[in-house]
Amino acid sequence: MRIIDFRNGLEPERLSLLVRQHSDEARKWEERVRSIVTDVAQRKDEALFAYTRQFDGVQIGSETVRVTREEIAEAVRQVDPELIAVMRRALEKIRHFHERQKQNSWFESNPDGSMVGQKITPLDSVGVYVPGGKAAYPSSVLMNLVPAKVAGVPRIVMATPPGKDGKGNPVTLAAADLAGATEIYKVGGAQAIAALAFGTESIPRVCKITGPGNRYVALAKKAVYGTVSIDSIAGPSEICILADGEASPRYVAADLLSQAEHDELAASILVTTSMELAQNVLLEIQAFTRTLSRKEIIQQSLENQGKIFVVRTLCEAIEMANEIAPEHLEILTKNPFEVMTKIRNAGAIFLGAYSSEPLGDYYAGPNHVLPTSGTAKFFSPLSVDDFVKKSSILYYSREALQSVHTDIIRFAESEGLTAHANSIRVRFPEEKNETGEGADENN
Amino acid sequence: MRIIDFRNGLEPERLSLLVRQHSDEARKWEERVRSIVTDVAQRKDEALFAYTRQFDGVQIGSETVRVTREEIAEAVRQVDPELIAVMRRALEKIRHFHERQKQNSWFESNPDGSMVGQKITPLDSVGVYVPGGKAAYPSSVLMNLVPAKVAGVPRIVMATPPGKDGKGNPVTLAAADLAGATEIYKVGGAQAIAALAFGTESIPRVCKITGPGNRYVALAKKAVYGTVSIDSIAGPSEICILADGEASPRYVAADLLSQAEHDELAASILVTTSMELAQNVLLEIQAFTRTLSRKEIIQQSLENQGKIFVVRTLCEAIEMANEIAPEHLEILTKNPFEVMTKIRNAGAIFLGAYSSEPLGDYYAGPNHVLPTSGTAKFFSPLSVDDFVKKSSILYYSREALQSVHTDIIRFAESEGLTAHANSIRVRFPEEKNETGEGADENN
Repeated sequence: MRIIDFRNGLEPERLSLLVRQHSDEARKWEERVRSIVTDVAQRKDEALFAYTRQFDGVQIGSETVRVTREEIAEAVRQVDPELIAVMRRALEKIRHFHERQKQNSWFESNPDGSMVGQKITPLDSVGVYVPGGKAAYPSSVLMNLVPAKVAGVPRIVMATPPGKDGKGNPVTLAAADLAGATEIYKVGGAQAIAALAFGTESIPRVCKITGPGNRYVALAKKAVYGTVSIDSIAGPSEICILADGEASPRYVAADLLSQAEHDELAASILVTTSMELAQNVLLEIQAFTRTLSRKEIIQQSLENQGKIFVVRTLCEAIEMANEIAPEHLEILTKNPFEVMTKIRNAGAIFLGAYSSEPLGDYYAGPNHVLPTSGTAKFFSPLSVDDFVKKSSILYYSREALQSVHTDIIRFAESEGLTAHANSIRVRFPEEKNETGEGADENN
Repeated sequence: MRIIDFRNGLEPERLSLLVRQHSDEARKWEERVRSIVTDVAQRKDEALFAYTRQFDGVQIGSETVRVTREEIAEAVRQVDPELIAVMRRALEKIRHFHERQKQNSWFESNPDGSMVGQKITPLDSVGVYVPGGKAAYPSSVLMNLVPAKVAGVPRIVMATPPGKDGKGNPVTLAAADLAGATEIYKVGGAQAIAALAFGTESIPRVCKITGPGNRYVALAKKAVYGTVSIDSIAGPSEICILADGEASPRYVAADLLSQAEHDELAASILVTTSMELAQNVLLEIQAFTRTLSRKEIIQQSLENQGKIFVVRTLCEAIEMANEIAPEHLEILTKNPFEVMTKIRNAGAIFLGAYSSEPLGDYYAGPNHVLPTSGTAKFFSPLSVDDFVKKSSILYYSREALQSVHTDIIRFAESEGLTAHANSIRVRFPEEKNETGEGADENN
């Protein structure tokens, strides 16, 4: 973690280099993932199970790939009932928030007999990827399944890699059961994404794939985009804390560390107007790190991606946050609401001293699947919108079309599209001679 | 165009083969496009202008790439004032419809001092691609720029390839001026998409790229997805007409033809319960085609992609339409509204005899940029939503956090994330001994 002094002025070019270190390995990984995806698309189950053997070290077949009701019941029995109660309370908060995101179909009608509108329909099916292996991520399960459920998606599939024992993680399964998954498959990695996108003999294809994952999963999602929809491509997690001299260095340090523990590539960034805070945060980080269980990951993450930017003014700090477009933005300033109004680019914005980032990861209700790597400039948090699609509705009566048909014909002809013009003209045969059917000469 | 008899029952596998013929050339094209994109990302203007010379046969430089106010004024003077008036009326309808799509930021607050919400912010910038060359597509200009404008995007860039004279098409420029483009560049193809995504010395990068285009453009958009956002990947245009025996074969034929004239790959599909209608539509198509200016394209398109599916029941026709998930769906049945309620997958739905598809292309208000190639199963029409992004807002008071903090700590620890737990715990130091700071043993 180091302090970088921007008090002589912002340099956006330099900032962008500092915030995200990209590697040139990307292309090599893309090729590997692409070959897995293509293989599963072609050889289906056969390839899917072969990769599961190779990457997860587990023998799965068409009879065992889908988690049974009994396995779920067994998983639920294995989980601490207190944790289930916590998950249930979190689920309620998350559901409540997402219910607010639901949009209505709407239409507008006019006395001339015309109507236009927008129809909202849940996706037929969705595949939610949940990382697995050693750790369980029940919060990911809730955050992905709940909006799909709220949207009304009838077929909600979860894929999660099996452990060495060939079973799904009990906590993950219990959370999926709580949140209403309709099918669960024990597959992971790029091969799981390919199976969801193209379908195999055992896993019927889905319309959209969401959920976090490692680099294999992220690149596989990119590769299948278009065949299915995806949420957004998740990169390493990141936090940006925007703090003035009044912020508690202890809180700032603890919150930066909570991000750093995710993985070695996670980015923890402090943007502050106070060099004193910057220095105190460094001291607090050293003290905390010693006591934390994931200190190796934290130290690597802070060394690679941890940054403290000191700037002259709050205005510049805000500008910098907008440039960084962080996944998580904590505002620890005198008037956090005021600052928030000026933030254009951030996945989730946490206001004030008691809204630390883990509140959003687990509990408050807003989704924790957020745009990373600066994509908050154009992507949004996962939401109910991700699990519906819209259709435009158009109805015109003869009278309504009559009043605008010459305009439409004129417009179509300006684009040289005479069959378009003809499709309108044929409805008004009494005008045939006036406007000239076919209008060959018009192109 | 041929009739395919499904009266013995639907076979979804066979249907999907019939509707969309994919070629294996895709990969080769992808590689070509990828090399153009990478080249422009690296060599910027130099590569951009070289490709413009190569593909458009025009010498453009950094002084001439941006369309000037004078060029726009000259373009407007060249366009028939009557067409400008038509475009202006269409623009009003389109703006009116899209105004209805605007969503509000919202929040919900509780007496314990907690608040969650969703903040909606326009994208900082957007790049709209408009195909060019011989023909002008002012409707594309309006359909892409208007929702961006309504969303409040401050920087709206248009890119459109130059003609042989090195100028933009006058109608395209006039439409862009009407609709409120803030910058226009005379570049096209994959090189234009790359320039918009990565920025060059002459063209500052944008946050999102929308708009239709040929295969180069579509694949380039796919290649830059993630660096920027894109709308959806547009394939060839398609119409599906769902008609019963009461539909006018003349209207059906005219509407199928209006789709077929787009290009050789455009798909015109009729799904009907009436073999009699099917046969009459074929006759009408023959009669019309002779009179239409783009008959070569139409004949090729119908031969390649034109299909008439005859099914037993209206129910099966609806099921088939949902399977096809067409870009445009016309419902020409006795009770089109009733049928519409059962449609899950379609970009735009046109109801009844006087709502022919060109009404939606130009005039009624809903966007004509629609999901193609079956992606209406998960993508939506271009809308104001495409030009905003959302940020979650979270604010908890000390009191509010207090009441849930043990749940959050419990949840974090279940995921092995002790620094997350610590970030909550540090806010309640009085409980230090009770819950045990650090909790190393918990992983």
